[in-house]
Amino acid sequence: MENTKHIGWMWYPGDMEIYHGMLQNFSREERGYDWPAFWWPDNWNHRVLFERTYELQEETRFTVHAKGIGNVVIKNAGTLRDINVNEVKYPLETELTIGPGAYTVTAVVGNMSGLPCAFVEGEIIHSDEAWTASNDLSSGPVGHSCLFRSLTRDPNEVPYSYREVEPAACTEKTSKAGNEGTLVDFGCAVNGSLKFDFDRPEGTPQISYGESDEEALDEERCYYFEKDVKSGTVSRRRAFRYIFVRGVKTTEFRVTAVHSYVDIPVKAAFRSDDELLNRIFDVAVETFRQCSGMFFIDGIKRDRWVWSGDAYQSYVVNPYIFFDKEINERTLLQLRGNLGIKQHLNTIVDYSMLWIIALKQQYEMTGDLRFIEGIYEKAEDLTGLLMRQTNELGFIYGRPQDWIFIDWADIDKEGTLAAEQVLLVKTYEVMAELAELVGRDGNFYQEKKEALYENLLRYFWDEEKGAFIDSYESGRRHVTRHANIFAIFFDLADEAMREKIRKNVIMNPEIAEITTPYFKFFELETLCRLGDLDEVMRRMKEYWGGMLEKDAVTFWEEFDPAQGSPEQYAMYADPYGKSLCHAWGASPIYFIGKYFLGVRPTAPGYETYTVEPKLQYFKALDAKVPVRGGAVRLLLKDGTFTQEFLPDPAE
Amino acid sequence: MENTKHIGWMWYPGDMEIYHGMLQNFSREERGYDWPAFWWPDNWNHRVLFERTYELQEETRFTVHAKGIGNVVIKNAGTLRDINVNEVKYPLETELTIGPGAYTVTAVVGNMSGLPCAFVEGEIIHSDEAWTASNDLSSGPVGHSCLFRSLTRDPNEVPYSYREVEPAACTEKTSKAGNEGTLVDFGCAVNGSLKFDFDRPEGTPQISYGESDEEALDEERCYYFEKDVKSGTVSRRRAFRYIFVRGVKTTEFRVTAVHSYVDIPVKAAFRSDDELLNRIFDVAVETFRQCSGMFFIDGIKRDRWVWSGDAYQSYVVNPYIFFDKEINERTLLQLRGNLGIKQHLNTIVDYSMLWIIALKQQYEMTGDLRFIEGIYEKAEDLTGLLMRQTNELGFIYGRPQDWIFIDWADIDKEGTLAAEQVLLVKTYEVMAELAELVGRDGNFYQEKKEALYENLLRYFWDEEKGAFIDSYESGRRHVTRHANIFAIFFDLADEAMREKIRKNVIMNPEIAEITTPYFKFFELETLCRLGDLDEVMRRMKEYWGGMLEKDAVTFWEEFDPAQGSPEQYAMYADPYGKSLCHAWGASPIYFIGKYFLGVRPTAPGYETYTVEPKLQYFKALDAKVPVRGGAVRLLLKDGTFTQEFLPDPAE
Repeated sequence: MENTKHIGWMWYPGDMEIYHGMLQNFSREERGYDWPAFWWPDNWNHRVLFERTYELQEETRFTVHAKGIGNVVIKNAGTLRDINVNEVKYPLETELTIGPGAYTVTAVVGNMSGLPCAFVEGEIIHSDEAWTASNDLSSGPVGHSCLFRSLTRDPNEVPYSYREVEPAACTEKTSKAGNEGTLVDFGCAVNGSLKFDFDRPEGTPQISYGESDEEALDEERCYYFEKDVKSGTVSRRRAFRYIFVRGVKTTEFRVTAVHSYVDIPVKAAFRSDDELLNRIFDVAVETFRQCSGMFFIDGIKRDRWVWSGDAYQSYVVNPYIFFDKEINERTLLQLRGNLGIKQHLNTIVDYSMLWIIALKQQYEMTGDLRFIEGIYEKAEDLTGLLMRQTNELGFIYGRPQDWIFIDWADIDKEGTLAAEQVLLVKTYEVMAELAELVGRDGNFYQEKKEALYENLLRYFWDEEKGAFIDSYESGRRHVTRHANIFAIFFDLADEAMREKIRKNVIMNPEIAEITTPYFKFFELETLCRLGDLDEVMRRMKEYWGGMLEKDAVTFWEEFDPAQGSPEQYAMYADPYGKSLCHAWGASPIYFIGKYFLGVRPTAPGYETYTVEPKLQYFKALDAKVPVRGGAVRLLLKDGTFTQEFLPDPAE
Repeated sequence: MENTKHIGWMWYPGDMEIYHGMLQNFSREERGYDWPAFWWPDNWNHRVLFERTYELQEETRFTVHAKGIGNVVIKNAGTLRDINVNEVKYPLETELTIGPGAYTVTAVVGNMSGLPCAFVEGEIIHSDEAWTASNDLSSGPVGHSCLFRSLTRDPNEVPYSYREVEPAACTEKTSKAGNEGTLVDFGCAVNGSLKFDFDRPEGTPQISYGESDEEALDEERCYYFEKDVKSGTVSRRRAFRYIFVRGVKTTEFRVTAVHSYVDIPVKAAFRSDDELLNRIFDVAVETFRQCSGMFFIDGIKRDRWVWSGDAYQSYVVNPYIFFDKEINERTLLQLRGNLGIKQHLNTIVDYSMLWIIALKQQYEMTGDLRFIEGIYEKAEDLTGLLMRQTNELGFIYGRPQDWIFIDWADIDKEGTLAAEQVLLVKTYEVMAELAELVGRDGNFYQEKKEALYENLLRYFWDEEKGAFIDSYESGRRHVTRHANIFAIFFDLADEAMREKIRKNVIMNPEIAEITTPYFKFFELETLCRLGDLDEVMRRMKEYWGGMLEKDAVTFWEEFDPAQGSPEQYAMYADPYGKSLCHAWGASPIYFIGKYFLGVRPTAPGYETYTVEPKLQYFKALDAKVPVRGGAVRLLLKDGTFTQEFLPDPAE
């Protein structure tokens, strides 16, 4: 029997993601209370059977390590399970000897409070991709991850790396509440804990945290605080750049921040003659890394939750910075949960559809059919939920328990909405493609797509306005950018429609501006598709460059150059509600990589790809864009452009 | 606002039972390994919202205690939740002040590893039955229990009471493995831990446990052992009567057992001139108490699992000993789990049907319509699963993943089976009645019942044999007692059929005997129904009396008077596989109370009941049988019978 690759810890497929998703979505803290995410959290399995059959030429030894309780059953291969007879069982964590012969090894692991998982150690018998996991309802190939290959990496714990960060500046200040103390600026965003050393035993009655100095100095209204801090206090993991330490002078204490992060290597680089663009790229990379851990989260201070819409944009950015398939997979599996869908992703109907659409993009990035095969049934289950809430015209509507989000914008939300139908058309299209990929007939979805698209045009395309209207039922014929942008973004507008949308919507100052970076991403992408790269470059420098002018070390959830301090930190009717390190702020990585450096896959898994940089934007360039198995280096020097493939030694 | 009854800890309805059920079903231990029950364990909710609206005349204060993380939101009553705006939230475990005015208080509690629950403390605002719990998918009245009324009783822990048990005898012995040591007999069944005090620091290399002395002395094959026991070692909770302490003499150590149990008061008593019957009753009570904790389990050494079939008999015994509605409710809720049924109860189709039938009996015992209303949807969900596996004749069949149990017996299991159809007829009948009880139309189920009953008679009633045959598809026309007993037990045989079954099956020595106490219960009940009380009394004394002759301190899983020691302890191909303290051994309590003392409800909830003792069986009698609100005392003294109602002061 050939020796197979050891995959370390194994679990029921999707369970690790559900478990860590709950850990993540329960980690939000604000002003002394916790805020577990407001949607229904799916459950991982608490009892799992791990099984594999071996044809052993000789005697061999192995040990089943586990997180949980259970036992190991060894059977002659082909013997049926007979629950009427107490089979011979063996303890976990014990070396067992079997062979030669054909045997089936089954490890049962139960874990009430955590993730049941197994790590089989042995020369021949060990964790590998041929093991299956069953929850007694269904079974499939085991889940595993590069994050949990070693026996000492417990899959119940986030596999953090740590980096100590020393203060960049300490300044004595008076807080807004009138208390004297020291404001510490770490000079960068930190997501971690603090270690203090005070010269006096009583320490400080309170430290206040801030992503901004304004927030840290506002002891009463800041998001995070910790009371009664003394030498040796280990504070909870929090995100901040500043802290205000009440009642102590700069000379009376020392503090170190311990930044904790899941280490996903950055494979991209960008240096050009344009210093502003370089800085935008670097700060975008920093922002994206901060918001990429076990999953793509929205922001590190707030919400610390996994949102499908935010994650959608992160999947798209990922190949231009990490080219890491696993964080996409983890996030997709986490968001979706188990078969038997009970609720839309984050309760949001549009986020459910973006999840399905993302599967196609995942396949385009990775070419990994196995992942699609493993998740297809869950996609179909979710599509079933979507279809159950369509009306006689095929239009999807929100039920009372659903959130129809689209964007924070003044959209006419009466009746069924154009933007949702555009997403559903795309969803059907993707499902048809995925069905064919996994060897099924995609015609059902293809027909659904065509029928819905016909009705979309009939009811929502307003020929007079030359645009999609939000709602036809209201009679108001209100036009916003959203449905129109989606139609171009998802390739659902023909050339004539694109031109009309461009003229009547995108370039029309009378149509309300997009205000959120969430939707700005879709809009910028649309501009790229329409070929307006000058405009995209201008807006990137204005918007992201504007934040840099405000001393941003990471990009914000939202930015309005007209706002000053402290109102620029407010959002959601909260003086510090704005997240200053938000994943969707990182999209310049994507626009630069895809459109300005011009690296794009032309076959699934980057089997083929193009490199078509827009050199007119640069005088000098030294950049790396990840592709399958490595990166493309683009070099523009002294008027000469060269490119080369740099293989990744780790692959 | 009137002051309501404080109900203590609150949870999402059914969650506490699911949580503790997993704790229970994961507690099986054998020979150094753990054995989490082999079926899919349903999950409790990890995030729950507790909510109640108050009309406050004045300012009032309250505190939300919780097991888990979360926050408290206070809103003006009638305000809709708006997730777009960060509502003002308050920490848990903090005294809050509101009023006067109309307010809705919402406590969000998340708990990844345990049961999220809340305990609201305050004069006006506190835990009561008007609080609702939501998991964001559905909501209903909160779950609560008499076991968790006090703030210090964490619903995550089993609320044990403890009793120290000293050894009854210590004897120096040689174990079967040839080791010298001391055999300790505690003289009774203990389910708990051991505390040792050795005169020498090394203690003992091993203690071996046994329900029998034979098992404790068999150090290599006993179920439980503990290695390297020293003074101060606290052993795991295990069930035993004997222990063998290797390598120490009786004088070299002291040991105390700490029996742990959920204290459910015994409300029955029985003393008669018949000493054997008195002892049978007492040992049955001891057996039943041992097997009644958070739930009705099968046995204390093995399996320690909640089995629906075993529990069914315990529900029936319950009113004749505890009259405790909550243990029935806990067991029913635990077995059933959540809506969206995934698997038959314990994977056994007949056990699913017994669960539904038990609901009717629960209503007859308690008259508690609220419980039926709360569980009706789950019953309907389960009935849906049953109906999805019926054929064109309406007959239920097993799918590959199902276990068709009925009994450990030589039943012809080819094709659909009579015994399963009898249970399904009864299931439909009960569903029709429950539907009407909760204000729905029961006709659907009534019609299903009638159609199935007609086919049952047509295909399974063999007029020539005057009996139900196991299978009609096999052509073998094999008769066992099971379907015939069920038909009488569940009142599905008319007078003529009953007579034929009595003659051709029950009293026919050519029909294979019932061998399990599980089905002996149904058979004895059938004999009672047929009026053969003499036979029932004879069998009780022979079977249960026979175990007492063998020095039983609790009744066994199975008993064959022909077997001697040690083979009498073997079962399931295991030398000590037989449980010597098994719930279904306790049925004499039921037969004595219901048929010999003649106490039976004649209206739901014992609104009315009869007391018709069979005095011919007694010369003297002093017995108590629980009824609603207390117990009936039956006194036969000097030839004079009197009865009186003794109210329960706790009610």
